[in-house]
Amino acid sequence: MTKALAGLKLLDVSRVLTGPYSTMVLADLGADVIKVEVPGRGDDSRLFGPFANGESGYYMTLNRNKRGITLDLRRPEGQAVLKDLARWADVLLENFATGTMAGWGLGYEDLAAVNPRLIYASITGFGQYGPNSGRYAFDAIAQATGGLMSITGAKGGPPTRVGTALGDINAGNFATIGILAALYQRERTGRGQRIDISMQDCIAAILENAVVRYTIDGDIPTRLGSSHANVSPYDVFAASDGHVFIACANEATWRRLCKAMDREDLVTDARFEINAKRAENIDTLTEIINRWSSRFTAGELLAVLETNGVPGAQVLSVDQVVGDPHIRARNMMVAVDHPVAGTITIPGNPVKMSASDDTIERPAPVLGQHTDQVLAELGYSADKIAALKAAKIV
Amino acid sequence: MTKALAGLKLLDVSRVLTGPYSTMVLADLGADVIKVEVPGRGDDSRLFGPFANGESGYYMTLNRNKRGITLDLRRPEGQAVLKDLARWADVLLENFATGTMAGWGLGYEDLAAVNPRLIYASITGFGQYGPNSGRYAFDAIAQATGGLMSITGAKGGPPTRVGTALGDINAGNFATIGILAALYQRERTGRGQRIDISMQDCIAAILENAVVRYTIDGDIPTRLGSSHANVSPYDVFAASDGHVFIACANEATWRRLCKAMDREDLVTDARFEINAKRAENIDTLTEIINRWSSRFTAGELLAVLETNGVPGAQVLSVDQVVGDPHIRARNMMVAVDHPVAGTITIPGNPVKMSASDDTIERPAPVLGQHTDQVLAELGYSADKIAALKAAKIV
Repeated sequence: MTKALAGLKLLDVSRVLTGPYSTMVLADLGADVIKVEVPGRGDDSRLFGPFANGESGYYMTLNRNKRGITLDLRRPEGQAVLKDLARWADVLLENFATGTMAGWGLGYEDLAAVNPRLIYASITGFGQYGPNSGRYAFDAIAQATGGLMSITGAKGGPPTRVGTALGDINAGNFATIGILAALYQRERTGRGQRIDISMQDCIAAILENAVVRYTIDGDIPTRLGSSHANVSPYDVFAASDGHVFIACANEATWRRLCKAMDREDLVTDARFEINAKRAENIDTLTEIINRWSSRFTAGELLAVLETNGVPGAQVLSVDQVVGDPHIRARNMMVAVDHPVAGTITIPGNPVKMSASDDTIERPAPVLGQHTDQVLAELGYSADKIAALKAAKIV
Repeated sequence: MTKALAGLKLLDVSRVLTGPYSTMVLADLGADVIKVEVPGRGDDSRLFGPFANGESGYYMTLNRNKRGITLDLRRPEGQAVLKDLARWADVLLENFATGTMAGWGLGYEDLAAVNPRLIYASITGFGQYGPNSGRYAFDAIAQATGGLMSITGAKGGPPTRVGTALGDINAGNFATIGILAALYQRERTGRGQRIDISMQDCIAAILENAVVRYTIDGDIPTRLGSSHANVSPYDVFAASDGHVFIACANEATWRRLCKAMDREDLVTDARFEINAKRAENIDTLTEIINRWSSRFTAGELLAVLETNGVPGAQVLSVDQVVGDPHIRARNMMVAVDHPVAGTITIPGNPVKMSASDDTIERPAPVLGQHTDQVLAELGYSADKIAALKAAKIV
């Protein structure tokens, strides 16, 4: 089966996580992604563990389905090759500090001059314009300055980083959306354009109700652990072997939970009889529920909850997610054979499309694996390729 | 200026957050989104606070730039109208429980029969196939079962929900990516397709390095607060009026932090002289840094860090994000005039495109605001529209 983006040509000069995540999603959907890396060294993320036979698991996760070449963008001969690649490409993605590509003569205007159909996407911490556009950011800085850290964490505890690099990944997804929208627009106009993604913007864009709670009511949302501002009990509770999330969104569910706990006395207990009272006495209530729930394994607890019609779910640890039969049935953990690392298991593609496969076609490239192939496709002669290699341009 | 997705026709029968977030992003990019709501009641989220003159801020955030109609999908006359709308549409998005739309005769095959070019996207908790596909989920259940909760939260503390409904929003973004990729494919094949998004899958897809840490090294990643598994100090520290994130990614930065603290004795202190030692003694080190940092306001602290070349950023609270001059300069907080609510400020569109505006063109609809207009565009006579209204189909 063909893939949705088959035929789309993407030139990826981005590094580490946010850009490579975007091009990973596009490659998973079938785009031909050429990843450009520094000769002799490669993407910084090649040095990030864990390692399998010396190959970075971090790099292999993010760069599957891509072809890899080396190219020195700091030297004029390398910049000339990049222009040839930009003539070939539909899309270029970069995540250098603002102004870096332009400084190399590889800014949007430079490349639009050789390929007006090129879509040129940049991801940076704070974007291409605005008073902070020169500031550098990485994941945690985006999570901090976008407001997300201030509303994540235990009640009364410090602001807390989301446990995955959401500052990077979320910006990568918005870049992917921008790139695909620009392709839609190009079908109509015949022209490419510049896309400017700021990691801080993208975090601010996912604050959802937190913004109007402030702009309408003047509340400053803060940290609530896993609990809910308006509904109790709605939280993570202890099992003997882990944790389970239990949600009582209304009075009927609360009564069913009391029945499940064999504590129907609580239904008429003045401290807990309505949601507002439960919210007021939540610490006591949480202790009561934890005392009950921790007598069961998570599996037993879920069965009791289900029997009684109380919504709940196990908090799965990463090993449990990797082994989850449902996740496996949906091809969300994929074993990939890598020529050096051997077989490794990495997350799959969550965009399931009836007319497009969700398979992973190839492992991440070893450094410079496709340099000869790609340059030959550009029409470079063997002599020219040899000369570029000798000069360490590629 | 035109917008990237101008001309794209989108039929949105989704409710609350995950589906409406996807169609919000598509509407912000210029798609003509018709939101379908239950007659007399509307989307459940119309009842979610905060309220401005009785209008839900939650609803108004997610449904700006859309037109709204009412339609009873449970009755055959309403199903017939939906089929007419499906003939008009390029894309349909729904987030009912698996099988609900098919039960109404509005499944993918039903609608593909009237419009083979239709792209039909579904978002559910666990997807359309697999052993758990019948299970119901909401945001917290996706965060729990996707593994994210298990790696978010304080060290030693319980699994913690991300403070925004990432289980919903993240699935919405992958749905948007799937829809746009299917449009790209349709330009080539002339045919639509079915897209199946599972909220659990989408969380598993953003676990990044946590997966290979387990599948390669056998580590089960757990909660680290805001700190880093391999780098110390890298955490949130207290200021007198808030918190600041400080990151020492290498020895040189650590030495600069010691200088900033006027504690160059720490550079040669055996407990802290190398990263591995600092990681071992992180509680003591955190206390030392907090004692120093809390003497300053966040603003003062950032100035000291910057002078000394130490990466840092303020943890902005939601009110600070809303007021941030940079966020404002990038049109990321937008004042929208609503006919009932008055002027409210909501988050803007983070996909900045040079050939496409990032303006918000219209407020969220009041219930049924565009029913007459949309049905007239379908070619329905005034009599037919009146009859549908009298029968409470619309």
